[in-house]
Amino acid sequence: MTYVYDFTESHRLENPTLLLGNKGANLAGMASLGLPVPPGFILTTQACQEYEKNQKLSDTLKSEVLAHLEKLGKQLGRSFNQAENPLLVSVRSGASVSMPGMMETLLNVGLTPDTLPGFSDFLGQSQAALDCYRRFLQMYGHIVLGLSSEIFQNQLQSKLEQTKTSHEKDLSEEHLKSLILVYENLIQTSLGLPLSTNPYDHLWGSIEAVFKSWNSPRAKTYRQLQGISDTLGTAITIQAMVFGNLDKKSASGVAFTRNPSTGEKELFGEYLVKAQGEDVVAGTHTPDSLNDGPKSLATLMPDTYQHLQKIGGLLEKHYKDMQDLEFTIEKGHLWMLQTRTGKRSAKASVRIAVEMVEEKLLTPAEALLKINPDDLERLLLPCLDSNVSASAFVEGFAGAPGAATGSIVFTAEDAVNAQAEGKAVILVRPETNADDVHGIWAAAGVLTQRGGTTSHAAVVARGMGKPCIVGASALEILSETTLRVGSVLLQEGNIITLDGNTGKAYEGDLPKAQPHLGSEINTALKWADQYRHLGVRANAETRQDVLKALELGAEGIGLCRTEHMFFDPKSLRAFQQMILSKTPKERRSAIEALLPLQKESFKDLFEVLDAKPVTIRFLDPPLHEFLPTSESDLAELARTLDIPLAELKQRHKSLQELNPMLGHRGCRLAATIPALYEMQARAIFYAAADVQKKGIKVNLELMVPLIVTSQEMSYIKTLIDTAHTDIEKETGMTLPYTYGCMIETPRAALRSDDIAQTADFFSFGTNDLTQLVYGLSRDDFAPFWPHYAEKELFPKNPFMHLDEQGVGDLIHKAVKKGRTTSPTLKIGICGEHGGDPTSIHFFHKAGLDYVSCSPYRVLSARLAAAQAALMASK
Amino acid sequence: MTYVYDFTESHRLENPTLLLGNKGANLAGMASLGLPVPPGFILTTQACQEYEKNQKLSDTLKSEVLAHLEKLGKQLGRSFNQAENPLLVSVRSGASVSMPGMMETLLNVGLTPDTLPGFSDFLGQSQAALDCYRRFLQMYGHIVLGLSSEIFQNQLQSKLEQTKTSHEKDLSEEHLKSLILVYENLIQTSLGLPLSTNPYDHLWGSIEAVFKSWNSPRAKTYRQLQGISDTLGTAITIQAMVFGNLDKKSASGVAFTRNPSTGEKELFGEYLVKAQGEDVVAGTHTPDSLNDGPKSLATLMPDTYQHLQKIGGLLEKHYKDMQDLEFTIEKGHLWMLQTRTGKRSAKASVRIAVEMVEEKLLTPAEALLKINPDDLERLLLPCLDSNVSASAFVEGFAGAPGAATGSIVFTAEDAVNAQAEGKAVILVRPETNADDVHGIWAAAGVLTQRGGTTSHAAVVARGMGKPCIVGASALEILSETTLRVGSVLLQEGNIITLDGNTGKAYEGDLPKAQPHLGSEINTALKWADQYRHLGVRANAETRQDVLKALELGAEGIGLCRTEHMFFDPKSLRAFQQMILSKTPKERRSAIEALLPLQKESFKDLFEVLDAKPVTIRFLDPPLHEFLPTSESDLAELARTLDIPLAELKQRHKSLQELNPMLGHRGCRLAATIPALYEMQARAIFYAAADVQKKGIKVNLELMVPLIVTSQEMSYIKTLIDTAHTDIEKETGMTLPYTYGCMIETPRAALRSDDIAQTADFFSFGTNDLTQLVYGLSRDDFAPFWPHYAEKELFPKNPFMHLDEQGVGDLIHKAVKKGRTTSPTLKIGICGEHGGDPTSIHFFHKAGLDYVSCSPYRVLSARLAAAQAALMASK
Repeated sequence: MTYVYDFTESHRLENPTLLLGNKGANLAGMASLGLPVPPGFILTTQACQEYEKNQKLSDTLKSEVLAHLEKLGKQLGRSFNQAENPLLVSVRSGASVSMPGMMETLLNVGLTPDTLPGFSDFLGQSQAALDCYRRFLQMYGHIVLGLSSEIFQNQLQSKLEQTKTSHEKDLSEEHLKSLILVYENLIQTSLGLPLSTNPYDHLWGSIEAVFKSWNSPRAKTYRQLQGISDTLGTAITIQAMVFGNLDKKSASGVAFTRNPSTGEKELFGEYLVKAQGEDVVAGTHTPDSLNDGPKSLATLMPDTYQHLQKIGGLLEKHYKDMQDLEFTIEKGHLWMLQTRTGKRSAKASVRIAVEMVEEKLLTPAEALLKINPDDLERLLLPCLDSNVSASAFVEGFAGAPGAATGSIVFTAEDAVNAQAEGKAVILVRPETNADDVHGIWAAAGVLTQRGGTTSHAAVVARGMGKPCIVGASALEILSETTLRVGSVLLQEGNIITLDGNTGKAYEGDLPKAQPHLGSEINTALKWADQYRHLGVRANAETRQDVLKALELGAEGIGLCRTEHMFFDPKSLRAFQQMILSKTPKERRSAIEALLPLQKESFKDLFEVLDAKPVTIRFLDPPLHEFLPTSESDLAELARTLDIPLAELKQRHKSLQELNPMLGHRGCRLAATIPALYEMQARAIFYAAADVQKKGIKVNLELMVPLIVTSQEMSYIKTLIDTAHTDIEKETGMTLPYTYGCMIETPRAALRSDDIAQTADFFSFGTNDLTQLVYGLSRDDFAPFWPHYAEKELFPKNPFMHLDEQGVGDLIHKAVKKGRTTSPTLKIGICGEHGGDPTSIHFFHKAGLDYVSCSPYRVLSARLAAAQAALMASK
Repeated sequence: MTYVYDFTESHRLENPTLLLGNKGANLAGMASLGLPVPPGFILTTQACQEYEKNQKLSDTLKSEVLAHLEKLGKQLGRSFNQAENPLLVSVRSGASVSMPGMMETLLNVGLTPDTLPGFSDFLGQSQAALDCYRRFLQMYGHIVLGLSSEIFQNQLQSKLEQTKTSHEKDLSEEHLKSLILVYENLIQTSLGLPLSTNPYDHLWGSIEAVFKSWNSPRAKTYRQLQGISDTLGTAITIQAMVFGNLDKKSASGVAFTRNPSTGEKELFGEYLVKAQGEDVVAGTHTPDSLNDGPKSLATLMPDTYQHLQKIGGLLEKHYKDMQDLEFTIEKGHLWMLQTRTGKRSAKASVRIAVEMVEEKLLTPAEALLKINPDDLERLLLPCLDSNVSASAFVEGFAGAPGAATGSIVFTAEDAVNAQAEGKAVILVRPETNADDVHGIWAAAGVLTQRGGTTSHAAVVARGMGKPCIVGASALEILSETTLRVGSVLLQEGNIITLDGNTGKAYEGDLPKAQPHLGSEINTALKWADQYRHLGVRANAETRQDVLKALELGAEGIGLCRTEHMFFDPKSLRAFQQMILSKTPKERRSAIEALLPLQKESFKDLFEVLDAKPVTIRFLDPPLHEFLPTSESDLAELARTLDIPLAELKQRHKSLQELNPMLGHRGCRLAATIPALYEMQARAIFYAAADVQKKGIKVNLELMVPLIVTSQEMSYIKTLIDTAHTDIEKETGMTLPYTYGCMIETPRAALRSDDIAQTADFFSFGTNDLTQLVYGLSRDDFAPFWPHYAEKELFPKNPFMHLDEQGVGDLIHKAVKKGRTTSPTLKIGICGEHGGDPTSIHFFHKAGLDYVSCSPYRVLSARLAAAQAALMASK
């Protein structure tokens, strides 16, 4: 077994990352491409595992290291432990999975009292050479010998004070020499003998220390939290030191191969002449642009700039992605120190992927896999201008992305009134319910005290594309006009700005960057549509939302929530009359009054959809959600409907439930008030008849919520069929429709074979299904979720990403049993997970036909569906 | 194929009931035993199916009927269509499944103008013979010819008015003759020709009419509702008419072979001399006892009485059960008309079963299958004296059985105070929660406005053996001292009586019958214990309940709800302090204050249990259940704990949840306040150590509620293990325990393989599991359950009887997966279904180890478990 590999030998390995670690494999990769990498070699993770076992470095390993070290010296014309032109190396940890900052690294190994003069000559600056040695002692004393770093730091500090020097870089040679003496004494006192001056001892000590750092408590804890195996071990990269701080032809810098903000194809980055890498990023000096201005690298060292550009192109071709580079120029010689995939903005991400296809760097399929679907959602929304810095007055969960500014209102009514006056408002509520929907619609953004990222406020706001912050628990609503967060008091009318991307809220009006969708996004999504198997529909019911959804590429409506059609004031009043009616006759007439209103809503929808399928869900929420809750609103309702207030309150109270989620809602409403679903069916069929008469096709899918048994399905089918037969006869039209249900209770999933006997389609309601499988209300989850997240008691937040093990298992079973009964059963999903990319991968694998999500998530769903298909076929 | 069977031929058939119908098979059975049954024969259900197909009676069938009819006449020395001593028959429907009153029957077929004089001679009463003929015409006209029964009824009515006769029996021969003429004319007008005087025509008509009645709309609807197949068809029994109204040596009567109230072995029944069967049950005459008094059958016709007694014995031996007999004595000759299993009281049921074993009529196993487990539960409770009649002022659901009387109180506190004064009270609440438990304990019974049979009030009351009525929705609580039901106003202090067996509540104090458990019940349950495989434990935590459970035969405690230990005033105050504490230190000290209280409760329990296993569930309910809700209670709490009221209210509000069932409860409390479960674990181990020091073994099973993931299980195991190690070290005792969890979320059931890795046992919490599988809150179910029951949208009430198809499917899966991981996994159930006999059958089949139920259901559970084992081994 080989324990040590040269950078140039990595092509011999099947899985270089596993053996050489991430960083090592990357350097080896560059070296294999013939790029100028400071030469070096890598001790494999297996060497670490061996060390673990034996608790010492084996002779085999040592002899391999020595052989490579000699070869390395020869390559550079330097030699380890040689007084003149000595070879110095770095000894770096690097595991195959990223564990940033968890393990150790030593620099300038090889620097000893004996090699110091030669190094000083090489640098041409003896003060800098002394500082390097001082740092080496400090690093070695702490990392290898286990002394506390504080004792070194304290000595340094007193030296600075004693010499009235403000920065350690400015210590004179004299002072450095005396500090080095102090350090050497510290080490001797601790060891009981002087520090070896043999750099080979330093090398073995460094290697052992790095291997040991794999099992440091913080590294172990990190791995436990991240679920990384303890047996992997770390590799060690030993690499010749290079120096960007030698002369005017020396420099260090960082570069992106394309502009990470815009995606433009140009070298983008900064560098500093006569500096080491850490100086560029430390912020103590102001670096210069690579290609802009008189001090740019392009101007001062045009050949090196072109060389760097060429290397960038080679690396992009090799890694098939935009790269983030680190380099050092040592006396005019360019050395590449690192390359990795570059982070980029959402906008740049799409542009780079598409342009790389045009440049033949990528196939369309490859390009699609490079784009993060979440980025597409973000692209649609305004966001806070990243150049502005301000501090938030409160922070909650990022409920719905985007940014908005407005004056505070505390009730949905005030939001509606303000909108009517043309004012932008932010609706602040303890939490929201169906009664607030018109207020959310009227507001520019929503801020709630309670609730999680899938609470009512977040779901509704996301659906409407409004920024929303939920669960800002530090916020107290003191009255109907005042809120407080700590010492901050804000009144109705005060201006605030929400950042729905971060969950932070600010006082005042902060500037925003407006979204601009480039043409690249359409190109990418056209490719996506060719690859994906899953259909993508939207959850929408208003004309405006449906238009938006179609514009963004939705193939139909997967969830039309008919209750949302009752929230305009006229329908709401009729609906409330229905709820509060005392006799069957009163109820019947209130329901009849709703019919024409529903019918008009449906007509509007069918016309816009123009033959595209629409899944219409019958009324779902419990009736009490349609009644107001505040004393004043109840009084007003009593006046309007001419009901004694006491009676209204009594009725209101009798509708209250202990657990409304598990109460009198969904198809249970049809069991108690069959006329309600009948009316909805009739409105749908009348509207379809009217629209078909205009020559527009209507593709109807009627869906029942909260099904538990096949008996419920049959019972409601009979109600619908009666209406259907009547209206076909009455209008003389053929009105085809399919019939199906939400699968959102565990029982429906478990008995999907029975239920499929009366169903043409299923649509998984994964919000409710998750709530029921977990016994967990998404609205009550926020206060204890942080504890769960911290202790990792759930695999992940099940309301954000579908729980494949539990909920997913049930979905698999339901799909299988349902299709056993009815092989042609169409199956979709219309919960919040329908817009979540990782969940979409699951739905693809589960064999679903389509996903349906908020209009604003349609773009990312199209992309994620394509990625799922591409990855499954890999 | 044979279409017609003599009564005596039924032994040739493998499944007589299927071919001959229930009633026919029964008569044939008696005839085969050689008992005196009026001779007859049966047209099979296949004959009906044939008729269905061809819509006419086949010649084969007709010739078989004629042959049997002739044989029948010969047996009796009479003949059909013969002027002298004519043979009359009944033509009765009778399917293989009971469809009471759904199909037709004709009597006195064979009576025509030609046979009427001969029949009149036979009867010796020409008026009675005329009346028989009039009835025949009316019956035939309606059933066979399809005339409305009203037109006959109207004619009869006007004849009665016209002749100023009060009852049809008293019409003179003259008037009857003229009425018969009117009837004949009605029929002739409708038919267009006179009614045939050939009785064979009547016979065929009657047979066709009975066959047709199988498909009458009401019969079809009935079958649809009962899930009976339409293809079965009805059999027809044709039997010679016998007459109990001929002379003093003629009579009709009914008899039970044993006393149906007490179970005593004696002929028990009534009879009437010179009467037909319908007269005995009609209530128009007062019948005499069979064996009591000077007019008894035993006195007047001792031979016949002895004959009847002997027949009863034969039938009991044959059917292996107590029989309910109908008989007629015609001129001193005893004819048996019917035998069937007799209904009996709970008490009689047990006595009869046990005595029949002593009499060698039954084996113990057979006897056990004759007892209804629900009867045993009822036997333990007082019930309303059945001799008293009163009308209820309100009716709800039967929440918990038994009867109780007391004065009305409206709060738990008032109940406690009244009990302290030695007063019996009935607690009336809108609904109850954990805060009311001490009030339920103090009250004699509970009446709630809301909730179903498994609501908090019902479950708690059932557990305590207190009668309870829930969901009395007509009840309005007007204030803290007044309730109203319609026009009835009741005040605090008014006396009411609850009947928890029927769900009815009465004003005033109604007399009760006290329970008396005979020795037979112990005999039966000892047999049961030998046959059952399932263990039976009880859900209990107070000393009193545990003693009761052990007395009734519980083998341990399957559910000790530790939260119930927090409801004494001292613990409650400490618990409230814990909830409201503002700093971790305050919280820690409040929790520490609870430790000694918990420890004492556990010591008490362990001593009583004396080595029997006890499954202790860690705290389950949400914290807000421990805070009061009324304004005045909150104010008092604020004073006691010295907290500003506004702050208390704010905290109280912040603990409110939209769906507390799905909220911050169960093991989620351990994620946020680990010290709480830690304290409980420590209290348990300290108590166990103390008790073990006294030489009493403790069999500990620690159980975690509301588990969703295996990570939760591991996390809490670590908390417990730390306490365990500490306390074993501190006390020097070995404190063995096993660790397990409730399986009450669908996810835990689906992932039981993972969870079993850290569990020694599972206990299904079928209440919550049902709620989650159905997405249905048992507390909010009551208002719409009647609609569900009426429309049969659920297979049955899933909170009463385990839903095998849905919840049961999940249980099967969980058992299988759990035992795959851990073959020795112990599995029980501690939901309400643990005491339900039909559910117990399921648990037996599912391979569970034990059921745990309320103490008062332990007896019936022991029996049901034995029945399940016996039926499964059949």
